[in-house]
Amino acid sequence: MTNPEARSVDEAVAKRRELVNEAIDEELPVTRPERLYEASRYLLEAGGKRLRPAVLLLTAEALSDVEPLTTSYREFPTLDGDRIDVMRAAVSIEVIQSFTLIHDDIMDDDDLRRGVPSVHREYDLETAILAGDTLYSKAFEIMLESGAEPERSLEAVRTLAHTCTQISEGQSLDVEFERSDSVDEEQYLEMVEHKTAVLYGAAASLPPTLLGAESGTVEALYRYGIDIGRAFQIQDDVLDLTVPSDTLGKQRGSDIVEGKRTLITLHARQQGVDVDDLVDVSDPEAVSEAEIDEAVSTLEEAGSIDYARKTAQSLVDNGKAELEVLPDNEARAQLEAVADFLIERGY
Amino acid sequence: MTNPEARSVDEAVAKRRELVNEAIDEELPVTRPERLYEASRYLLEAGGKRLRPAVLLLTAEALSDVEPLTTSYREFPTLDGDRIDVMRAAVSIEVIQSFTLIHDDIMDDDDLRRGVPSVHREYDLETAILAGDTLYSKAFEIMLESGAEPERSLEAVRTLAHTCTQISEGQSLDVEFERSDSVDEEQYLEMVEHKTAVLYGAAASLPPTLLGAESGTVEALYRYGIDIGRAFQIQDDVLDLTVPSDTLGKQRGSDIVEGKRTLITLHARQQGVDVDDLVDVSDPEAVSEAEIDEAVSTLEEAGSIDYARKTAQSLVDNGKAELEVLPDNEARAQLEAVADFLIERGY
Repeated sequence: MTNPEARSVDEAVAKRRELVNEAIDEELPVTRPERLYEASRYLLEAGGKRLRPAVLLLTAEALSDVEPLTTSYREFPTLDGDRIDVMRAAVSIEVIQSFTLIHDDIMDDDDLRRGVPSVHREYDLETAILAGDTLYSKAFEIMLESGAEPERSLEAVRTLAHTCTQISEGQSLDVEFERSDSVDEEQYLEMVEHKTAVLYGAAASLPPTLLGAESGTVEALYRYGIDIGRAFQIQDDVLDLTVPSDTLGKQRGSDIVEGKRTLITLHARQQGVDVDDLVDVSDPEAVSEAEIDEAVSTLEEAGSIDYARKTAQSLVDNGKAELEVLPDNEARAQLEAVADFLIERGY
Repeated sequence: MTNPEARSVDEAVAKRRELVNEAIDEELPVTRPERLYEASRYLLEAGGKRLRPAVLLLTAEALSDVEPLTTSYREFPTLDGDRIDVMRAAVSIEVIQSFTLIHDDIMDDDDLRRGVPSVHREYDLETAILAGDTLYSKAFEIMLESGAEPERSLEAVRTLAHTCTQISEGQSLDVEFERSDSVDEEQYLEMVEHKTAVLYGAAASLPPTLLGAESGTVEALYRYGIDIGRAFQIQDDVLDLTVPSDTLGKQRGSDIVEGKRTLITLHARQQGVDVDDLVDVSDPEAVSEAEIDEAVSTLEEAGSIDYARKTAQSLVDNGKAELEVLPDNEARAQLEAVADFLIERGY
């Protein structure tokens, strides 16, 4: 990446990633039964950009109006002068994200994730289901120990639980849509909101909840998270088609091979493209790079990839506008930059 | 059942089961996506004795010293004169139990549960994983709305989350033990405590937590739950060998066919029985009733089934002794009777 804003986001995310990784080690130690905890940590250790925790930590810094990276996340100032551990909330969100990836990979029977074998491949099905289930409850245990006032902690846990319910609903819609020919754009965006965007909504709205902001601020920051989360998923769908498998850490074009609905294929179908015939889905293993290339060309010619990019841009613009509830400071500027980064990133 | 105490427990559990089933309908409505919620409710609707909710509701009645079944569980008196909804806590515990059964059946690839196909057989693997994940977060959402004081609600959610972590740990140990020849009784009982007993511990300790009892009472009732929960699992292992498949709702002798460690096989091994040779585990489908009969005779002759029964009896006696922290009333007598019932039941 060459432009200065992108470089600054990379740095902002990378510095927080280091701190988040240290905190994951502390909050999720390998205890007995060791194999279960090793499997639970396997994907967390395999990488990940830690974008959701970064959004959470930046939102906390913007809200409490502190100079970024100058204040310990473990003893972070609330709006009424107490100190709480916002890092635990950040770890909790990443742990939920990791649980959903482990169960997702089982459901899609995906072999690779973050360039390493998926958990059910590296271990086995039983261990992968249990690793996901363990992370699920651990996320709640970690969130409960932020030290925030009881009412605020309760509201944070309520957000977490409702977010998890919505993620399962979104996954279920995603599966349902693979079997349906009559999905429209509105239904698709609802599915994306549930499957992906709510966790960004949680990441951005937990700091105002825990730090004691008023409800209008919680709601605006939730909408920021939802908007950039939707944009993130749409960009993910674009990248699935346009980035080499090596960089993706998984098979390029897996969405069309698996018959997943995306904003891109929905648009193409409206333009008269025979989406079901883009590649031969009867034998996914046999689909060649050349067939993927051809499918991508067809989608480009229909204007569908461009349409997805424009939709993502418009969501990012809306999301950034919500940030006006925050003090005008460096952390807020970085939250704007993160929003831009989500749709400019190439991996 | 012929003795009056057993009949009284049957009645006490049955009357609360009806109320719990109504509450499950209210707390877990079928909403969009319908197939996900239908799958989530499938096992809950297939039956189940609702023993854990019954323990929870009886503990609340004993503690608040009300005449059993005279006070609405939805507006239940706390120890300091407020009203809370203890039924939600009861539903939450049953919902967690149901989530673990759905994921268990996937892990063991069991076809039957409560006499109907397991969820991954009736629906599919993806839907079963998601149904379990949905019940998981719903249990937290429901527990959060008891209306108890924030500190008490937080402590209840902490108990729930920690219980879920321990269940996954117990399941993981169970899987590990299938592959190990060096499991001793202490390790086995630790596994059972994590896999099964903690949910009884939660059921008995949530009412004192939510109703505002002192910590000594919470701890004693937790120990009551742990003791009867261990006894329950040991009795389950006895029933797996001694009750016809039709009554069990699953294959009799499945534990020995699947090579599961139980207190019975651990004892038999100590007595010199070649436990691995009891039945031919290489082809589980081909194991006949006659082979199971012969295996059971061998275990009986070694005194192993009797040993398990005596161990369960001793745990029940310990558990009942913990109930002395409660006022001496009708509900407490029923909690004693429930403890006896857990090891006298024939199904």
